[in-house]
Amino acid sequence: MRTRPLKVALLGCGVVGSEVARIMTTQADDLAARIGAPVELAGVAVRRPGRVRDGIDPELVTTDATALVKRGDIDVVVEVIGGIEPARTLITTAFEHGASVVSANKALLAEDGPTLHRTAEEQGADLYYEAAVAGAIPLVRPLRESLAGDKVNRVLGIVNGTTNFILDRMDSSGAGYVEALDEATALGYAEADPTADVEGFDAAAKAAILAGIAFHTRVGLDQVHREGLTEVTAADIASARRMGCTVKLLAICERAVDGRSVTARVHPAMIPLTHPLASVREAYNAVFVEAEAAGQLMFYGPGAGGSPTASAVLGDLVAACRNKVRGARGPGESAYAQLPVSPMGGAVTRYHISLDVSDKPGVLAQVAMIFAEHGVSIDTVRQQGKSTPEGGAPPAGGGEASLVVVTHRATDAALSATVEALRKLDTVRGVASTMRVEGE
Amino acid sequence: MRTRPLKVALLGCGVVGSEVARIMTTQADDLAARIGAPVELAGVAVRRPGRVRDGIDPELVTTDATALVKRGDIDVVVEVIGGIEPARTLITTAFEHGASVVSANKALLAEDGPTLHRTAEEQGADLYYEAAVAGAIPLVRPLRESLAGDKVNRVLGIVNGTTNFILDRMDSSGAGYVEALDEATALGYAEADPTADVEGFDAAAKAAILAGIAFHTRVGLDQVHREGLTEVTAADIASARRMGCTVKLLAICERAVDGRSVTARVHPAMIPLTHPLASVREAYNAVFVEAEAAGQLMFYGPGAGGSPTASAVLGDLVAACRNKVRGARGPGESAYAQLPVSPMGGAVTRYHISLDVSDKPGVLAQVAMIFAEHGVSIDTVRQQGKSTPEGGAPPAGGGEASLVVVTHRATDAALSATVEALRKLDTVRGVASTMRVEGE
Repeated sequence: MRTRPLKVALLGCGVVGSEVARIMTTQADDLAARIGAPVELAGVAVRRPGRVRDGIDPELVTTDATALVKRGDIDVVVEVIGGIEPARTLITTAFEHGASVVSANKALLAEDGPTLHRTAEEQGADLYYEAAVAGAIPLVRPLRESLAGDKVNRVLGIVNGTTNFILDRMDSSGAGYVEALDEATALGYAEADPTADVEGFDAAAKAAILAGIAFHTRVGLDQVHREGLTEVTAADIASARRMGCTVKLLAICERAVDGRSVTARVHPAMIPLTHPLASVREAYNAVFVEAEAAGQLMFYGPGAGGSPTASAVLGDLVAACRNKVRGARGPGESAYAQLPVSPMGGAVTRYHISLDVSDKPGVLAQVAMIFAEHGVSIDTVRQQGKSTPEGGAPPAGGGEASLVVVTHRATDAALSATVEALRKLDTVRGVASTMRVEGE
Repeated sequence: MRTRPLKVALLGCGVVGSEVARIMTTQADDLAARIGAPVELAGVAVRRPGRVRDGIDPELVTTDATALVKRGDIDVVVEVIGGIEPARTLITTAFEHGASVVSANKALLAEDGPTLHRTAEEQGADLYYEAAVAGAIPLVRPLRESLAGDKVNRVLGIVNGTTNFILDRMDSSGAGYVEALDEATALGYAEADPTADVEGFDAAAKAAILAGIAFHTRVGLDQVHREGLTEVTAADIASARRMGCTVKLLAICERAVDGRSVTARVHPAMIPLTHPLASVREAYNAVFVEAEAAGQLMFYGPGAGGSPTASAVLGDLVAACRNKVRGARGPGESAYAQLPVSPMGGAVTRYHISLDVSDKPGVLAQVAMIFAEHGVSIDTVRQQGKSTPEGGAPPAGGGEASLVVVTHRATDAALSATVEALRKLDTVRGVASTMRVEGE
């Protein structure tokens, strides 16, 4: 074993950073044995220097992150600040000064991954980011390496713990969205401003990263279709139950059937209770991968939290350090396939549509005609009178009824055009909800 | 990209080998892009040269595997022959002639992994074996690399598809073991001689490999406690159901609570229906990993079959080839911890014990005394008369009753000593079954 220690700079010392520092200290011997060299914390950049940090030598703490990454003797920089700037500049500077980088920064990787990868490549450095997607769950490495000889066709993931907690609560207690969000906030699963989670921004960043790796294609954040879960109602969850489904906020990355394009999207969807993702409860994450030779794989675990995220960071840190010791490099970006990324209209899915309609004869025929005109085939229809007592005659002016239609698979463009046309029908008083159905 | 192709020798061309060859041909461009160099099949060693092999140039086929691995121009040898010899000698010879090796050979890795690793190390070559454990499921790489900065405390896996299929059938249909085995054989899930699967040899080899990686400790095949599932009865499965459990053949690798030793074992066990492993159906595999920082992770997928195993082999092939191109090496054996491997008696578990007892007063007190004498605490007891009509008086000589005891956690030594002592009680006519309870 080499005796000169590898030097690690830690950028950020919040929930994740402090756990990384703690494990680096308490597990130092194990890490040294696994790396083949001792590893030491050489500096910790923070914003608020005054705060006491258990187990971290105050001498190591600095507010000058730039000076730290420019020191020149740093082997690996661990970036757990989050956000675009100053993280991007610091990482770039770190590469330019000979360091490899381990990052947990999904926003930055999704926004500017290719540039960071290129800089790492030019400098002969490593860029690892397992912690950026699904916390502790090994996912980036299995996709980049274990499945490197296979052809991934589909990635279907629950990659945001906050929204899974909210949907799980709505499903198990019948609570509405606001009530479930309040509970998530009270329990610390949702932040004071939950926008990034509930509007799907967090999941979209992860979808962009996963699609990029899975399809060897750069997928920009703006190419990921994104819908949050704020409009999911207790009625939607109840409807899902009636068809043997539950509602999950899914990140879906798919190769088109002809293999010539890919799509990436985040939205709530109904999935059958028999699907392995349906039983992912509380704030857990899970990612389902369909590959041509491997078949269906699932990876499950805690998607967030200080310790789980630190586990992923440290796995990457060991890899980056091993490479430093051996003068080797890990796999870089693989974007050779450069498949076009189709907009949402090109995605193939199924819709569950709830319509409020006039309760009079001929409505179903009219509705069915609209589907047929758009080339969308209907799987099931459930018709339910609201104002008409069972067996009674409809009121003179026609009462209200609801019609629940589940389609077969069609492009999202055809499905949404169908919904638009339905809205224009005189007999359709409103489209109560539409939700996609996945995982079949 | 370098233009000189990497040369691959394939040892074995059965179900897995032919699929590896097929994918190497059909996905050649993708593999080249991911490796950074073209890769070509340079030779295929088989036992029966006469058989036609679709898509494989007959010129490449040879029966002289030794000459093939000695050629000197082979970059990577893929060994999918299985068994100890000639696989071991061929792999060693391959290393000595400059090749890296990808193997799917669980028996050999479990029996002689350390020697192979040492030879690879001496020759500066790579040894990869993702396919040796749980087929397509990325498990070896996540344990070796993704969790390299964490402390794994427990691995609990369904790693044999044949036995999971049998137990799943017994559970869903109430079939007995023989009937379920017959169905597995008819459907091709069990081999004509099912011994390796049903007696747990296959799972034990995987447990040895997993324990070795998880605990950075060499675990010999003879250190893995092994019980098959041939004695599991329909009554056991029914008992499991009554306590909200199902029966699975589990490979369990555990670090002792004091952290100073490890155990590895394979046996049938009851697990709660709420445990993620309980819903692993048919011939699927899944491995549950508990790590200190990461928490609970699960990896799920097809554990066998030509295509899934080929997927794992090809992932390793890409890794080995990338290393060849870059002049780098993957992680070698990590056995620095050298923790002692405790025998089964040291494992901590719970027992579900069914006793046939005399149906007379005082039996439960006698039985409870035996548990107390062995320091084993009882969780629940269910007492059921067999010959006594409900509320009726027992026959003069005392009829038969059954007593089902579920214990709290204790060492397997204490639990099995308790069972031995129970057998000696006059009032205990027989121990109908004992089964461990795990996953809580």
